[in-house]
Amino acid sequence: MFEAKIDANILKGCIESITAIVDEGKLRIAEDGLKLRAVDPANVAMVSFELQSDAFDDFRFVPKGAEPEAVPEAEPTTEPQVSEATEIGMDFRKLLDILGIGGREEVELELDEHAQKLFTRMGSLAYTISLLDSSSLRKEPKVPELEFPAQVIIETEEFRRTIRAAEKIGDHIALGIDGELFYMEAEGEMDKLRLGLRKEQLIHLTPGTLHSLYSLDYITAMSKGMAHAENITLNLGKDYPLQMEFEVAEGKGKVTYLLAPRIESE
Amino acid sequence: MFEAKIDANILKGCIESITAIVDEGKLRIAEDGLKLRAVDPANVAMVSFELQSDAFDDFRFVPKGAEPEAVPEAEPTTEPQVSEATEIGMDFRKLLDILGIGGREEVELELDEHAQKLFTRMGSLAYTISLLDSSSLRKEPKVPELEFPAQVIIETEEFRRTIRAAEKIGDHIALGIDGELFYMEAEGEMDKLRLGLRKEQLIHLTPGTLHSLYSLDYITAMSKGMAHAENITLNLGKDYPLQMEFEVAEGKGKVTYLLAPRIESE
Amino acid sequence: MFEAKIDANILKGCIESITAIVDEGKLRIAEDGLKLRAVDPANVAMVSFELQSDAFDDFRFVPKGAEPEAVPEAEPTTEPQVSEATEIGMDFRKLLDILGIGGREEVELELDEHAQKLFTRMGSLAYTISLLDSSSLRKEPKVPELEFPAQVIIETEEFRRTIRAAEKIGDHIALGIDGELFYMEAEGEMDKLRLGLRKEQLIHLTPGTLHSLYSLDYITAMSKGMAHAENITLNLGKDYPLQMEFEVAEGKGKVTYLLAPRIESE
Repeated sequence: MFEAKIDANILKGCIESITAIVDEGKLRIAEDGLKLRAVDPANVAMVSFELQSDAFDDFRFVPKGAEPEAVPEAEPTTEPQVSEATEIGMDFRKLLDILGIGGREEVELELDEHAQKLFTRMGSLAYTISLLDSSSLRKEPKVPELEFPAQVIIETEEFRRTIRAAEKIGDHIALGIDGELFYMEAEGEMDKLRLGLRKEQLIHLTPGTLHSLYSLDYITAMSKGMAHAENITLNLGKDYPLQMEFEVAEGKGKVTYLLAPRIESE
Repeated sequence: MFEAKIDANILKGCIESITAIVDEGKLRIAEDGLKLRAVDPANVAMVSFELQSDAFDDFRFVPKGAEPEAVPEAEPTTEPQVSEATEIGMDFRKLLDILGIGGREEVELELDEHAQKLFTRMGSLAYTISLLDSSSLRKEPKVPELEFPAQVIIETEEFRRTIRAAEKIGDHIALGIDGELFYMEAEGEMDKLRLGLRKEQLIHLTPGTLHSLYSLDYITAMSKGMAHAENITLNLGKDYPLQMEFEVAEGKGKVTYLLAPRIESE
Repeated sequence: MFEAKIDANILKGCIESITAIVDEGKLRIAEDGLKLRAVDPANVAMVSFELQSDAFDDFRFVPKGAEPEAVPEAEPTTEPQVSEATEIGMDFRKLLDILGIGGREEVELELDEHAQKLFTRMGSLAYTISLLDSSSLRKEPKVPELEFPAQVIIETEEFRRTIRAAEKIGDHIALGIDGELFYMEAEGEMDKLRLGLRKEQLIHLTPGTLHSLYSLDYITAMSKGMAHAENITLNLGKDYPLQMEFEVAEGKGKVTYLLAPRIESE
């Protein structure tokens, strides 16, 4: 059983951070909130999403495991408090469409697991969405074990503005640290763009010397997904994946993007 | 002779309610104002439009019948006051284009019936539009005799918002009454949208049990034509045409749309 | 050596007045400011552009001629103060793109003539644009000797609004003077647009009787280039080129467009 209420605009921001990477995926509902982990169709980018139950005005979840027939009495577990989750196949693009219709209203969600439907209510408008067959969806990816030697925390708007400028130049972008300077660099045939921010212009910087190249298409999509966050945390390495973290739902949710590096041709 | 002045924005709203259904048509000018009745090319939707002469800042019309040579003296009529009308073939889409250029100005209209032209003046900008040959236009349709068992009066914005949401779901929409509840329902392959409003959430409702299905394309076009009206009146029946009425020109004009129902396939 | 600082928005307005006619051209940098003269690829329109050095917050230019090795000592000139200029090949469209990214910031320009690059800096964002090979660009056109019998000064917004209206009618526009009246006229197959302004509705008018026809495509492009100017000066003749002048950079720059007339087919 899952029933919840949340500000439609907050939910919209959350779903946008997911649709930046995937259109559909397996959403895990548990007592402590919602979770999703998914990779894009080309296996280049991954999104991890968490939304705490206290981001909701109302959140009620009773796992199937709480029903008597689902608990095999023969094998009593020593840790019965382990929270169980329900996994539903969601078309996030569709949910986003419908959230775009309402204004700053509250949206009510109600899961009918038996009928495999999610009921959505905004004022007098009710929207029923069929869940996707979980078996037809890609398996939840494993998060690779990564160690990032450096971290930069930057204002989202500065980052997004640079990405928009870079789109006019080329189709990849380099992110790097040079001593106490963080830089983003895009190069075209005729021109070159470079953002350079010193430690004191950033919220945080680990000094070092490293540099990686990424596909601009993916970073552009991701930069749209983070539109509502004030700051983003970039975890960086040398020719290494990029991890971007930011908060959603006024700090009660967290999104992490992971993006594979591109091999530099030179 | 026809000469008139009107707020350009008011006239724009009126013409938009016409172009929602037809691009061109026969506009009847009489002493009491303007009238039009036209059906769309596919014969699915009809618009009836009336704009009272007092919606104009200035309105002068002298029918051709008032000219001596046009009144055969041999046959004196007993009721010479019967107002005659002049019918002109108008390209409403073109008129709308030109009204979009001006701001909230006054527009002056002047008919040159001999040259078959309509002069339009907004400030120092004059626009002359050739009238369309009336014989090339479709005949004015007859309004079918209809009796609507139920009536709903609803805020236009609530109606339009539901239409916008329904467009994301499917290509038809059902309008119905179930007891004291008015509903609008759209169904796609995977999802379903439903607006339900109780009597007290509406301005008016005739309780009953009825339901009709309509093409969303037409209702979408109509919902754009009613953008400036605060409320709309829906006249409904069971598998029956839909009649939508609303005011234009601050209550000094009236638009009625009539839309044929679609047959439900199930 | 060229280094300068200027409000990004002011520079953007200037560059827009150039890109209305050409995408690229030879920009001449001298001690007193910047200059450009270019014709469009079809040889129908010409733009002359001047931006005074005092439009800049900071402007430093040392001509190559000031360097010792460039001044042949064997031939001392009698007037060594004659200001020399540097000519660079610019892709204005690209510069405009990048200026569109910044807000109302200051932009710093720095020329590296040796490397044939222009450095552009807005806050922490640096953009390096390769200069175009001057020899691949069209030669700077000569300004034809013209004498305009009449001049009209008109509010830019009135002019631009009429151009927007004319675009809906046809593909050319006539500009003329009839006694103390200035008019603009566009004719389509079915309709006709005319702006008529009497002397007292204009800032200036030379009475006369003249009339020329121009391609609307070009005037439309030019009317976009003048968006930031309050008034424009039209220099007119009978079946003669049109010269349009307006100020940019708060009066510290000047743009002149010249447009060849079209031959009237009737």
